[in-house]
Amino acid sequence: MIEVEVKARVDDPKQLERSIIELGATPIGIDTQTDTYFNAEDRDFGKTDEALRIRVQDGKSFLTYKGPKLDKISKTRKEVEVKIIDPKNMGQILTLLGFLPVSTVIKKRKNFRIGDFFIALDEVRDLGNFIEIEISVNDAKNSDEKVQSIFKFMEKLGISRELTIRKSYLEMILEKNK
Amino acid sequence: MIEVEVKARVDDPKQLERSIIELGATPIGIDTQTDTYFNAEDRDFGKTDEALRIRVQDGKSFLTYKGPKLDKISKTRKEVEVKIIDPKNMGQILTLLGFLPVSTVIKKRKNFRIGDFFIALDEVRDLGNFIEIEISVNDAKNSDEKVQSIFKFMEKLGISRELTIRKSYLEMILEKNK
Repeated sequence: MIEVEVKARVDDPKQLERSIIELGATPIGIDTQTDTYFNAEDRDFGKTDEALRIRVQDGKSFLTYKGPKLDKISKTRKEVEVKIIDPKNMGQILTLLGFLPVSTVIKKRKNFRIGDFFIALDEVRDLGNFIEIEISVNDAKNSDEKVQSIFKFMEKLGISRELTIRKSYLEMILEKNK
Repeated sequence: MIEVEVKARVDDPKQLERSIIELGATPIGIDTQTDTYFNAEDRDFGKTDEALRIRVQDGKSFLTYKGPKLDKISKTRKEVEVKIIDPKNMGQILTLLGFLPVSTVIKKRKNFRIGDFFIALDEVRDLGNFIEIEISVNDAKNSDEKVQSIFKFMEKLGISRELTIRKSYLEMILEKNK
């Protein structure tokens, strides 16, 4: 699956939430997500632009791999996810295979949906507030068009393309802790 | 978790099943298991004596890591397992991380329990019939004593210690296909 994604920092999350709902988005739930990121022994995911993560979200857990970003303007990348039952054992297996935990990102995520857009309003511990808009496509061929449609939606929310960010929360946390 | 395990080839599985039940074991179900084994790009699990496997068993799926054997007489080793929901996505993540599928072992397993022993009577495609007796312990310190108690039980079934096998089904399949 290809996740077409655009992200931006948010100054006034309450105002932005009102704007999203005014534009017709439906709230679909709030999650608390604790994401532990791993790095490989034999290659640095920071350099290869990959990510490997265990997410624990309100009692549910997922293992996720993200491939390198596929364009120069968005956070679009290949993403594969598996629901897992025991995140502690999963972490142990990853460590035994040579993947070591690097850092943890904790956030409260408000989810919205409008058409085929998934919108997340994130309050990230130590980093602040962000919006992420995402569309899943099967094929990278269609991603450019989807990126442009997300940019257009962002503009309606008063967020110009120049304000979007391509850095992951993990990269931001690691920079902050340097 | 340490899995203390002893295994042997079986000539007459029906007779052996009767003997197991006569000794007081309780049948606890029959599974069909399809195990896909992966090898690492940066180290050969055949040489490091590790194993990484996705098991699909009657609609349930598991990811399992097995460490090197811990003694010279049994198949005792560290084992960590996670129940997973989507084995296809798990296989894709492993491949993206540099682990490639090597071979698949398919078997019908009849499970029995007696005390803290788990007994499996396996009918393995292309390999034949085997018995595996297993005890889980938290600490490798107690494993020697447990191995000896399994050997004693095996003897009651007419299987002498010399007839036990330390090779995995994967190793046997790979040897056969050479």
